[in-house]
Amino acid sequence: MIVNMSEKATEEQITHVIDRIREAGYNPHVTRGTERTIVAAVGSGRRHEIEALQVAPGVDNVVAIAQPFKLVSKQVHPERTIVQIDGVQIGGPEVVVIAGPCSVESREQLLQTAHAVKRAGASMLRGGAYKPRTSPYDFQGLGIEALKILSEAKKETGLPIVTEVMSTEDIDLISEHADMLQVGARNMQNFALLRRLATSNKPILLKRGPSATVKEWLLAAEYLLSGGNRNVVLCERGIKTFESEMRNTFDLAAVALARDLSHLPVVADPSHGTGKQSLIAPVSRAAVAVGADGLIIEVHPCPERALSDGPQSLDFEGFEKVMRGLGEPLRRTASLPHAAAAVS
Amino acid sequence: MIVNMSEKATEEQITHVIDRIREAGYNPHVTRGTERTIVAAVGSGRRHEIEALQVAPGVDNVVAIAQPFKLVSKQVHPERTIVQIDGVQIGGPEVVVIAGPCSVESREQLLQTAHAVKRAGASMLRGGAYKPRTSPYDFQGLGIEALKILSEAKKETGLPIVTEVMSTEDIDLISEHADMLQVGARNMQNFALLRRLATSNKPILLKRGPSATVKEWLLAAEYLLSGGNRNVVLCERGIKTFESEMRNTFDLAAVALARDLSHLPVVADPSHGTGKQSLIAPVSRAAVAVGADGLIIEVHPCPERALSDGPQSLDFEGFEKVMRGLGEPLRRTASLPHAAAAVS
Amino acid sequence: MIVNMSEKATEEQITHVIDRIREAGYNPHVTRGTERTIVAAVGSGRRHEIEALQVAPGVDNVVAIAQPFKLVSKQVHPERTIVQIDGVQIGGPEVVVIAGPCSVESREQLLQTAHAVKRAGASMLRGGAYKPRTSPYDFQGLGIEALKILSEAKKETGLPIVTEVMSTEDIDLISEHADMLQVGARNMQNFALLRRLATSNKPILLKRGPSATVKEWLLAAEYLLSGGNRNVVLCERGIKTFESEMRNTFDLAAVALARDLSHLPVVADPSHGTGKQSLIAPVSRAAVAVGADGLIIEVHPCPERALSDGPQSLDFEGFEKVMRGLGEPLRRTASLPHAAAAVS
Amino acid sequence: MIVNMSEKATEEQITHVIDRIREAGYNPHVTRGTERTIVAAVGSGRRHEIEALQVAPGVDNVVAIAQPFKLVSKQVHPERTIVQIDGVQIGGPEVVVIAGPCSVESREQLLQTAHAVKRAGASMLRGGAYKPRTSPYDFQGLGIEALKILSEAKKETGLPIVTEVMSTEDIDLISEHADMLQVGARNMQNFALLRRLATSNKPILLKRGPSATVKEWLLAAEYLLSGGNRNVVLCERGIKTFESEMRNTFDLAAVALARDLSHLPVVADPSHGTGKQSLIAPVSRAAVAVGADGLIIEVHPCPERALSDGPQSLDFEGFEKVMRGLGEPLRRTASLPHAAAAVS
Repeated sequence: MIVNMSEKATEEQITHVIDRIREAGYNPHVTRGTERTIVAAVGSGRRHEIEALQVAPGVDNVVAIAQPFKLVSKQVHPERTIVQIDGVQIGGPEVVVIAGPCSVESREQLLQTAHAVKRAGASMLRGGAYKPRTSPYDFQGLGIEALKILSEAKKETGLPIVTEVMSTEDIDLISEHADMLQVGARNMQNFALLRRLATSNKPILLKRGPSATVKEWLLAAEYLLSGGNRNVVLCERGIKTFESEMRNTFDLAAVALARDLSHLPVVADPSHGTGKQSLIAPVSRAAVAVGADGLIIEVHPCPERALSDGPQSLDFEGFEKVMRGLGEPLRRTASLPHAAAAVS
Repeated sequence: MIVNMSEKATEEQITHVIDRIREAGYNPHVTRGTERTIVAAVGSGRRHEIEALQVAPGVDNVVAIAQPFKLVSKQVHPERTIVQIDGVQIGGPEVVVIAGPCSVESREQLLQTAHAVKRAGASMLRGGAYKPRTSPYDFQGLGIEALKILSEAKKETGLPIVTEVMSTEDIDLISEHADMLQVGARNMQNFALLRRLATSNKPILLKRGPSATVKEWLLAAEYLLSGGNRNVVLCERGIKTFESEMRNTFDLAAVALARDLSHLPVVADPSHGTGKQSLIAPVSRAAVAVGADGLIIEVHPCPERALSDGPQSLDFEGFEKVMRGLGEPLRRTASLPHAAAAVS
Repeated sequence: MIVNMSEKATEEQITHVIDRIREAGYNPHVTRGTERTIVAAVGSGRRHEIEALQVAPGVDNVVAIAQPFKLVSKQVHPERTIVQIDGVQIGGPEVVVIAGPCSVESREQLLQTAHAVKRAGASMLRGGAYKPRTSPYDFQGLGIEALKILSEAKKETGLPIVTEVMSTEDIDLISEHADMLQVGARNMQNFALLRRLATSNKPILLKRGPSATVKEWLLAAEYLLSGGNRNVVLCERGIKTFESEMRNTFDLAAVALARDLSHLPVVADPSHGTGKQSLIAPVSRAAVAVGADGLIIEVHPCPERALSDGPQSLDFEGFEKVMRGLGEPLRRTASLPHAAAAVS
Repeated sequence: MIVNMSEKATEEQITHVIDRIREAGYNPHVTRGTERTIVAAVGSGRRHEIEALQVAPGVDNVVAIAQPFKLVSKQVHPERTIVQIDGVQIGGPEVVVIAGPCSVESREQLLQTAHAVKRAGASMLRGGAYKPRTSPYDFQGLGIEALKILSEAKKETGLPIVTEVMSTEDIDLISEHADMLQVGARNMQNFALLRRLATSNKPILLKRGPSATVKEWLLAAEYLLSGGNRNVVLCERGIKTFESEMRNTFDLAAVALARDLSHLPVVADPSHGTGKQSLIAPVSRAAVAVGADGLIIEVHPCPERALSDGPQSLDFEGFEKVMRGLGEPLRRTASLPHAAAAVS
């Protein structure tokens, strides 16, 4: 931490800052320039006490130097993490494709979709049972009924299940039916939920919040790791910007950045990332090229009849095309330079 | 809802859209232009089925015409709502000031602050017991200990208490000690929490999410009203933008817009809105001028020693100055044109 | 400037940074922490050479400490600047209102508007002759014809004229007819234009770019001041964000911040700031309350027939109401605390 | 255009809207719903007159249906455009790589770089002579001196030259030395410049503005095409968002979207798109995978000594690695599904 004194700071003010740095458990190191003085807080102490010096008299601003996350950091844990979900590995040499409908709408809809995505090459099944919806008047999911249908789909296809958990109260029930629990974008900073999931034995798919910086996203993951759950997969799904032609701005560079800063696997969600059926194919290829460890794609037997996210869902034929476009070598072998490097 | 066919749409595609609109419970009205055809869905039916037509063949896009919220709308409920919080009225002719520390840190800190803000003219006391913090390593609040201190402060000063609730599991306990429950910005779309608070008998302070549009904010309030709780106060606290010199971009026009679209009272939070002690005075004046029904301001005995939000907290003297700057007539009488009009 | 070495930086890498700081004209000051070393560049040298060290081996990042602007800074020039425009003072105790149509459309339209806004209390007249339009198919302004009409309006009403200049080639011609030259938001970083206007003897109204930080805005003003033109008025007109209900997000806190960082006057443009006729009144009051030195408001005899910006223009009656809502004491006396402090 | 009447609109207000639509040259088509009436403006007339009805009494809002651009649209011109730059084709089956320093700093620096990027496989040379810089105190480019050096580099290497033009006054001079003229991101809506470049016989590289929507970007291109210059290449270079870890948010989905909406070639600039040397390799691969027709990459003999953009520049070895990472088949053949489809 660096405390940057204003040009007019008095000796007394500088001394006050030095004392406060010591009180906070750090060693103060003073650099006197021609125009201004800076005081570095060296060692490790109580960070917030230094941050609060921003309002001490004579202080211009306070600058943090080190990254605020620890357990998720590649510096602390240089080997890449591979997360195991009932036989599927995310973070290994293969790019994993998770597919399925936004919401489970009926037994028929889900089973049909599960078989179709499996045939096309998906390794895991997604499907919402409890749905976070902007309006209270929109379809909110079938709940427990949906969970049972997901279990049945797994029995039939063998595909492990990932589904969203919206509340601490649902964790136990959902854990009986799902192999991986998803934290939705709008709950990325629902810290009560994160703290409880940190003690779960299920792997977590942590979506990036629509206005979360990469740092805030990694700090949300830090809640999970520091609470005991190391099986965390990050998921980029687009951020909110002024661009209104697409549902979100798909931040593919953030996939590469998150993999640079952290050892956790990162998957990409082209469906929410763009909100446009017609863009899923090219941005899926781009996500794989940028180094994503996996993709999560919305598929529905008839998107125009979907109860949610129809405009961004692929039908079975569309999904097969996307899978073919990704190409065998990229998905099945270690030939992707970035991903291959990752696991070595 | 308007379904806008593409220029190359075939008769068959147009017929398909017309049939689907009928199936969804609406009446289809067709307008054939020189270049393209549009089909309006008239009446009331299942909105998502029309939205999903966006991916039907021959459709360019689907446009919603009506606002998606109902109970919060001024069109449905033209009289302005006044929310009662143990004797304090938000939404009436007086601009209500809520003040107190970001977090309750100790008995002494809170009681001292409670007396100081009361002396300066505040009508309610704020103080966090459970804190949503970006990093798991930051101070997370004193929990139940803080709730007891808040109760004591109320006993001593008579100021009603507002404090944040982060989890459905804490609602009952917090309700024993607080007069108003705050939904924090990061939980604005925590729908499980909203649904439970909808059945609470406590008034709710609903903060706008850092990346929520005004519409999404009002739809979050719609969860509360449609679930049975009509005592909702909206709170603008700044949105995330590219501007990095301030913590957030304080969207004061949104205060006026929310009051135009809805009958609910709107308060403004200049502390989070700017993140800068030095800007609290001018933006508080602006918030009152734009028509805010109240202000919520962070005050700490010694901001540079605060465990959270020090840089944006005022000390007692600073808070008194802000209150004096607001001026008696604005706070105490109905002379504010916008607010006065509101209750008439 | 602070160069923050990575935890694994070698002695050789640290020495390299020290040498480069010396080469760039600064004195290096080294602080060795338990985990990492930081090197401060003290004194004044070639800043970009330190910035570029970000990619030197062993460097984590480079942090700037001092603000990058000089002549616009309140630290360099503590007294507030008052800009004189043919008898009108911007930055003095009175809040100046500039009003008029978005575009000059006809002699009748402009003269009628000029008289109306004068009657209602405006001190200056605005009107576009050369219009920056998103689409080449939109009305582009009457050009020289409009300039002549503006001159005539000044002769009739005495109101000084401000109009936009879009190109270096038009500066001379426009200067014959206008008292103040406006740099539009989209040209805020048109540096060729700024450099030429720096040598003009006309005062400049410099609009903030739709995605410019306050710092970038002040640096654009620095182009004008460092080139010789000190008569600069800043204008906040809203920034681009995800919020789509309003044309822009009106950043009123930035008005206060710009006045804190700089001695230049700051006016606010509620018309572009919100894009909504119905919000002009409350946000104008807020702009005055936050300390704006003036307002610039679009007025048209019949907004629904305007060739540009109709949805955000007031008719004559609407403008009079806004003026009455601002109130005599705020506009005419020094009773506004912030502005009064400013000029004392 | 659709005019959406409010629920309380009177018959008189509806009649007024119908009359105004007719006056504006359109045919009005009325749809009366149970709750509200909508009036469509059918045919082609003066669009702004319908837009301005937004403030007519009884009108809720006005919605545009058709895209506002014409000549750039794929609907109007379904075949993809190939732009020829002295032997290099952008928009054809090969992905073209343009490389070179941010600024021309010296003869030696440029010639060395030109040879290096050619060796590594680049097809064109970039280098700034006139530099748009946020601060007036930063290096502003060598001007005409730089142009001569660029010409020399072309003579030595055969690589065609692209360089930025910041002002209408420089167009002629720069055209003597450059094969392609770049409009910088900050000048994307410098309409005076666009109008002059529309009459130039040089191909234009049009960078997307940091806060421009894809539609605004295409409308800026429409200025060039409608003015007579059809040799336009679009360039995505990142947009401004709240994410601060990277210089910009690289909007790769916008590359795919722009290619869907328009027939113009689109290249991507990973250097500005991320601002981080370490991310250039993965995002370049992603840009190619998403369908970009080319890449423009900053290369410098010694990035840490660069006078501008050092942190995002590659050294020669880094650039070679990026080129190798892109892989022969992608660059040289038509095997890229998206690009191949494009030219067929």
